[in-house]
Amino acid sequence: MPDINKKLSQSAKSMKKSAIREILKLLKDPEMISFAGGLPSPESFPVSEIKEITSMILETQGAQALQYGTTEGDAALREMLLKRHWEQGLTVGQENLAISTGSQQALDILSRIFIDRGDCVICGLPSYLGGLSTFNVYGAQMEGIPFDEHGMRADELGKRLDKLHKENKNVKFIYVIPDFQNPAGITMPDSRREEILKIASKYDLLVLEDSPYRDIRFEGKEQKLMYDIDKEGRVITMFTFSKILAPGFRIAWLLANPEIIEKFLMAKQSADLCSPVIVQKIIAEYIKRGLLDKNLVNTISLYKSRRDHMLSCFEKYMPDGVKWTKPEGGLFLFLTLPEYMNADDLFDKAVEKNVAFVKGSVFYCNDCGKNTMRINFSYCNIETITKGVERLALVIKDSMKKDGHS
Amino acid sequence: MPDINKKLSQSAKSMKKSAIREILKLLKDPEMISFAGGLPSPESFPVSEIKEITSMILETQGAQALQYGTTEGDAALREMLLKRHWEQGLTVGQENLAISTGSQQALDILSRIFIDRGDCVICGLPSYLGGLSTFNVYGAQMEGIPFDEHGMRADELGKRLDKLHKENKNVKFIYVIPDFQNPAGITMPDSRREEILKIASKYDLLVLEDSPYRDIRFEGKEQKLMYDIDKEGRVITMFTFSKILAPGFRIAWLLANPEIIEKFLMAKQSADLCSPVIVQKIIAEYIKRGLLDKNLVNTISLYKSRRDHMLSCFEKYMPDGVKWTKPEGGLFLFLTLPEYMNADDLFDKAVEKNVAFVKGSVFYCNDCGKNTMRINFSYCNIETITKGVERLALVIKDSMKKDGHS
Repeated sequence: MPDINKKLSQSAKSMKKSAIREILKLLKDPEMISFAGGLPSPESFPVSEIKEITSMILETQGAQALQYGTTEGDAALREMLLKRHWEQGLTVGQENLAISTGSQQALDILSRIFIDRGDCVICGLPSYLGGLSTFNVYGAQMEGIPFDEHGMRADELGKRLDKLHKENKNVKFIYVIPDFQNPAGITMPDSRREEILKIASKYDLLVLEDSPYRDIRFEGKEQKLMYDIDKEGRVITMFTFSKILAPGFRIAWLLANPEIIEKFLMAKQSADLCSPVIVQKIIAEYIKRGLLDKNLVNTISLYKSRRDHMLSCFEKYMPDGVKWTKPEGGLFLFLTLPEYMNADDLFDKAVEKNVAFVKGSVFYCNDCGKNTMRINFSYCNIETITKGVERLALVIKDSMKKDGHS
Repeated sequence: MPDINKKLSQSAKSMKKSAIREILKLLKDPEMISFAGGLPSPESFPVSEIKEITSMILETQGAQALQYGTTEGDAALREMLLKRHWEQGLTVGQENLAISTGSQQALDILSRIFIDRGDCVICGLPSYLGGLSTFNVYGAQMEGIPFDEHGMRADELGKRLDKLHKENKNVKFIYVIPDFQNPAGITMPDSRREEILKIASKYDLLVLEDSPYRDIRFEGKEQKLMYDIDKEGRVITMFTFSKILAPGFRIAWLLANPEIIEKFLMAKQSADLCSPVIVQKIIAEYIKRGLLDKNLVNTISLYKSRRDHMLSCFEKYMPDGVKWTKPEGGLFLFLTLPEYMNADDLFDKAVEKNVAFVKGSVFYCNDCGKNTMRINFSYCNIETITKGVERLALVIKDSMKKDGHS
């Protein structure tokens, strides 16, 4: 047998199993209530419309739907996306758009075209795990910036960049999730977006704006896309159909300046040639029929009711000293235990009691956040949310008692 | 505007546009006859069966088909694939199998887990361009081994490895396409496969066996999979549905020893989380109903008739001094012009006369093969093949005249 470990690349040696994927495997038990995944509710899937559209696509464009497609993506889908962005008031053209096989592929390919081993990447404390693990694969040195109630702190960002600049570090980009951040559930106000962009401009950095949840706003005023504020072509914005239509399609898209799109497409050619064609055609037709925005109304209303219910259960069941964010949209809220508590330790106890969350620490590139948890509110129904929060609150209270704090 | 070039990774700086993808763009002209792409014939797509199966899947498993899936792939599809391999007499289990988003992703992820910049990769002269460009993205130093009529020469491989070993080079794997090679159309006999494996064992190397065409055999005796010959767990074999069902699905799979599969899945998590779910479920059902092998019979008969016709047109129209391979299966044959001729120069003239091929030189990692062309015979119908070969032969004859060789 060949010794595989001896043959691995540096990148492979540093790879870890995804904490979230591993948790998802635990959850096959039907008794388990999971607030862990980032799964959309199946109730939000427009199954019968998709069925009808797919039949139509196969009847009228079967040969094209089953054939290889272009790397930049299906022409009809690209057209629908641009039209939708124009209606939103964005200034974008064909040269600014590329389709990707899920946003995760966009993160991967952007990392590939910008990161050399040892380059720095700026991220939030906390930040989306899938982003962190991809940057890690490419050997990035992660620089975590603390949050306040408005997201990534601009003052801390400025200080850190100044320090890194003096150390002659090669900083490539700032990774942000401005709307309903994963995992923190925080939305950056326009003013913070502008501050961060000003700093990016000062240090000549790119900004990766990850925007999977933007269309799922329950309340409050829509803030500007950083892509829209930026006048210098330094913001790359990633969107996806995974949270607003169906993750099983694995279709996402990004906007960026044409030079970046061109390199992105070269890199995508060697990554997967093209994204699945048939599903791109299904989505294009779905948007063309006006169904995307129509279905979003239902999804938003569904998720809002679940968030509302979860917040009220938290109020009702959680002991004193536990805090949580109140997201204006998206899929997640973030729970903070008293400093002395450790959510990593609580995890096994919670799973024993048939309730699961994601340990907040996995979202921190600096090994902090031990007293935090990410809680998903999109997947479980109202009844399950009640039961799950009750169980979770009990586990937390029990642990407080044992620690002699209650 | 940020200076994007200054921000690119080493990998991005070395990326080139895919020669084939660029050619495909030229071919939108309906007058153009293209032998360039590697496209399956749309006549081989079982559109109505796919339509019926998709409706059924959405009716019975809509919620699962549209949701995120597991990184290793849909359970039903995995089961069908294993069953099929067992029927073929292979010894494989769940732990040997992973689904990928097209074979190109498998090439990409395998490169990621094995190649550090400067590592050596062995390939054929010529070899599949998508492989070469992916290895290049990861900074591999390509070592090309000449071919004889049985594919990669074992004697030359041995000599090269001996040299590289003495130079203390880190050689990671040998990349081979044993059945109906792309682009050469050559099939390695069992004896050559065994010789190459013996050498791989001697130098403790992995073997990447790329096997997209194996199921498309027109005639001759099936040779053993290198995966099947190997008793040491050093062969990784890649298969795909792109050539036997529908490339628009972007679904492929690979077999390897469990340690490699485990690393592969970790790397795939950060590359795209999972492959598109709905199409995996469609394919699983398609195989379950026995349609894959049934449809293959038609595809094989279709491609065989096209190959036969192309060979007879070559006999009829090509001037003396032009040679070509006679593949026992697959999608491609390889044409060799007299040494003094340059197929790169002929390309523009051919496109002017509305016929296209792929310059053979793009398949050579050592800049050779200037007098070769890759010709696809799966895509065009009989009538178009006749016209295209006539045009191509005329361009070649014209060029011979100008060179004073005729």
